Amino acid sequence: MYVTQGLHRAAHETPDLPATVFGDRTRTWAQSLDRVARLAAALQGLGVASGDRVAILSLNSDRYHEALLAVPWAGGIVVPLNVRWSAAEVAYALTDADARVLLVDDALLPLVPRVRAEAPTLRHVVHVGDGPTPEGALPSEGLVEGHDPVPDAHRRGDDPFGVYYTGGTTGASKGVVLSHANLLVSALGMLATGDVMRPGGTLLHAAPMFHLADGATWLARTVLGGTHVILPSFTPGGVADAIERYRITDALLVPTMIQMLVDAPEARGADLTSLRHLVYGASPISAAVLDRATSRLPDCGFVQAYGMTELAPVATLLRPADHGVEQLRRSAGRAAPHAEVRIVDADDREVPRGTVGEIVVRGGHVMQGYWNRPEETAAALRGGWMHTGDAGWMDDAGYVFVVDRIKDMIITGGENVYSAEVENALAAHPAVASCAVIGVPDDRWGERVHAVVVLRDGVAAPPADELREHVAERIARYKAPRSVEYLEALPISGAGKILKRELRAARAAAPTMA
Amino acid sequence: MYVTQGLHRAAHETPDLPATVFGDRTRTWAQSLDRVARLAAALQGLGVASGDRVAILSLNSDRYHEALLAVPWAGGIVVPLNVRWSAAEVAYALTDADARVLLVDDALLPLVPRVRAEAPTLRHVVHVGDGPTPEGALPSEGLVEGHDPVPDAHRRGDDPFGVYYTGGTTGASKGVVLSHANLLVSALGMLATGDVMRPGGTLLHAAPMFHLADGATWLARTVLGGTHVILPSFTPGGVADAIERYRITDALLVPTMIQMLVDAPEARGADLTSLRHLVYGASPISAAVLDRATSRLPDCGFVQAYGMTELAPVATLLRPADHGVEQLRRSAGRAAPHAEVRIVDADDREVPRGTVGEIVVRGGHVMQGYWNRPEETAAALRGGWMHTGDAGWMDDAGYVFVVDRIKDMIITGGENVYSAEVENALAAHPAVASCAVIGVPDDRWGERVHAVVVLRDGVAAPPADELREHVAERIARYKAPRSVEYLEALPISGAGKILKRELRAARAAAPTMA
Repeated sequence: MYVTQGLHRAAHETPDLPATVFGDRTRTWAQSLDRVARLAAALQGLGVASGDRVAILSLNSDRYHEALLAVPWAGGIVVPLNVRWSAAEVAYALTDADARVLLVDDALLPLVPRVRAEAPTLRHVVHVGDGPTPEGALPSEGLVEGHDPVPDAHRRGDDPFGVYYTGGTTGASKGVVLSHANLLVSALGMLATGDVMRPGGTLLHAAPMFHLADGATWLARTVLGGTHVILPSFTPGGVADAIERYRITDALLVPTMIQMLVDAPEARGADLTSLRHLVYGASPISAAVLDRATSRLPDCGFVQAYGMTELAPVATLLRPADHGVEQLRRSAGRAAPHAEVRIVDADDREVPRGTVGEIVVRGGHVMQGYWNRPEETAAALRGGWMHTGDAGWMDDAGYVFVVDRIKDMIITGGENVYSAEVENALAAHPAVASCAVIGVPDDRWGERVHAVVVLRDGVAAPPADELREHVAERIARYKAPRSVEYLEALPISGAGKILKRELRAARAAAPTMA
Repeated sequence: MYVTQGLHRAAHETPDLPATVFGDRTRTWAQSLDRVARLAAALQGLGVASGDRVAILSLNSDRYHEALLAVPWAGGIVVPLNVRWSAAEVAYALTDADARVLLVDDALLPLVPRVRAEAPTLRHVVHVGDGPTPEGALPSEGLVEGHDPVPDAHRRGDDPFGVYYTGGTTGASKGVVLSHANLLVSALGMLATGDVMRPGGTLLHAAPMFHLADGATWLARTVLGGTHVILPSFTPGGVADAIERYRITDALLVPTMIQMLVDAPEARGADLTSLRHLVYGASPISAAVLDRATSRLPDCGFVQAYGMTELAPVATLLRPADHGVEQLRRSAGRAAPHAEVRIVDADDREVPRGTVGEIVVRGGHVMQGYWNRPEETAAALRGGWMHTGDAGWMDDAGYVFVVDRIKDMIITGGENVYSAEVENALAAHPAVASCAVIGVPDDRWGERVHAVVVLRDGVAAPPADELREHVAERIARYKAPRSVEYLEALPISGAGKILKRELRAARAAAPTMA
């Protein structure tokens, strides 16, 4: 199994089909293969040898697709970096991974001087944008034109494909090493349900390509053949326009993007009827948003994928038919065809169904380990199972209900409160567009359940009591927020996750609110 | 990736769902896991250690399913044997694979004394039938009851899962070593199209389970969960009754079985409407039989799978929608999502589209090699591609048209004639139920195109001239049979392939016919 196999096959079977559409630029699979083989030659010319790391710091583009294929074609290992990171965070990852070559697009070029200063191992910066190439960087178009194609180094199976830096929401960033087999097991297993996408469709990339949520659909589409339509980044209007213009059949969006797509005025007029498969994940979705999305896209099958980078990334899938069952709509679904899932206690014993514990996962998709961190690897993979750090429970039919990151659990008055459950109840209030529930220090309760709410456009803020009662009608009263605040927007990571760590840090010393 | 993973998952998610239905016996997934773990304990008690081979010689049964899982659970490697073989052939395979343990059902017990005499390495015979256990054999039910479950040895990835003996149609039998990953890549890749079967259905086993054509669907269904309904062997009435009784959703049949199912009087009244996915393979299907099958099963998607044991076994798939395109119906389809396919000349250079050459295949499903045959392995896998020995051509869209086994090609008057093309034309004649076209020695032409025909029930044999003209109207006249004979039935291998080798051998010295 090798990630470049889909490129070989598509270029052989459908050489004239568009592989990538990016703005006004369309490249066929034959062109894609040719450019990949030339860029790989250039990388080898820059000293990239078998197993060397090559980092990518770029908004979405057709060149991101090419880079993800050219690096293994050259024999290297990709290191896709978070575009929201500071120069210091980028430099940390480059240094940790010992990446000597960095590909950067126009938008991220301003970080390069500080990155260079803080990452002395970095040797070459390749500019993969359309603007002017700054001094000291190499223009990728010049490299592609100046090199003859080389044969695929044909890395495969247990060879590492990428080192993916996690973190942003849970502390120190670690490099997750995923092999070609890890990624392909997850992609094929996801596809094996028949629900996620079908051969020959058109996939929209609006979520960031550096993140494996999008990366998983990128690989699945590349394996099956078809076309990638790539937006530089997410805007609700841009997504709606692209779906209409390119008759998009499949998309991966995180829940906050789905909420914006169905609520934003600029997306309202677009014809979205071509969409057949919408995969969502990276964070739970509220029942209220899912309802609005289902009514906006009645012919589209919704699939929730739950997982994490360490799982390459899919562990469970909630299938379209499951979405019609009220009590399953808050579930993350059942083990994907390639995965086994269990809920265990602190001693790694399986807990009875219905009991909350840690979600652990086993299968051919589980990471090889954390880059250069044998102790953390051994801890995460103890007993042969990946310990996700997520709290959840399983029903009798094997459906998994993710209740929270274990770190996001609130302990108030001795009771465990899972923030996701409170958020879901809160999101059903008509004034609420999105929300985050966190624990804040409280003299009386230890931690207090605190809600941070973004209101829907043009709606006045309801009194805190009204929201509290709204939640208490739906779940236990002790879980209802004791304090509420309103923000214009929530802090969101590059992958679309709400940064609760930031919310918590800013409120750690906040005074008690009524 | 491990073949036993589906058992773990199904027993965890759907413990009370029937795993196997065989005659009046239904066993749930929980029971299946328990029995597998006990049988594995018994096998370990008989000395089966990690990597040891355990052979199975049995008609289809629920115990075949359990054996395929218990052997890797114990740490061993399965050796499924052809049920049509003579004792000498069985003994050859046992000796070649050094299998110390043989599982045998009632029907095959009579071979055991001669097998024992000719395979001195064999230590233990386990009787997996329902009749009396003969002296010197161990009853599997006693072994299951007498052992406590052991943990799964958890063989996986590149560990060999099985040694599959090929041959029967093309000479000396070789053991094909397939790893867990090989088989799962093929199964997941096949499923990734969404056409072959869906989660939670009911699969019928009527083709022999020792053969990987059925084995591939067995694994796919085990991966996705659902139920196996198992018939001891194929009869058209038995298959029709089972589809109606168990609301079968998916089946694998070889073309000769499909022909019998749609033509046999005893299958005519049955309700076959539950069938959604019918995979056929192991040999080409004539357009005429496909037409009759499509009209009998209008709601069923037909998928042709082409491959071979060495490919674990799937290389290409002809999708249901492709069957609606006249010129594609004789194609074997395009490369499956896990495979790359090329047509090459004798020097392994790719030939232009439309030119006949040898079909070669690359991917994570390609066998590890032939058991203890490094030279034949190196020859078959030269350049990193599996050389199938099949002649075929590819159209501009990547559809593969298998024209023949290279060994079955007829050279007559200096022209290459591919028997499959002649058979396809001949099968369209209303009198023809099935047929085989072979080359027989001929003083004038070198080889002569000779047709062996089985007539449809109650139809008189047409004159040879009529069949010759029928063929010559459809394909080039030099390809039309110069001689025709009628048989009651064609010699068929255990896997449902027509044994052309036998037909040729019997006619090698036959006199020239008009």
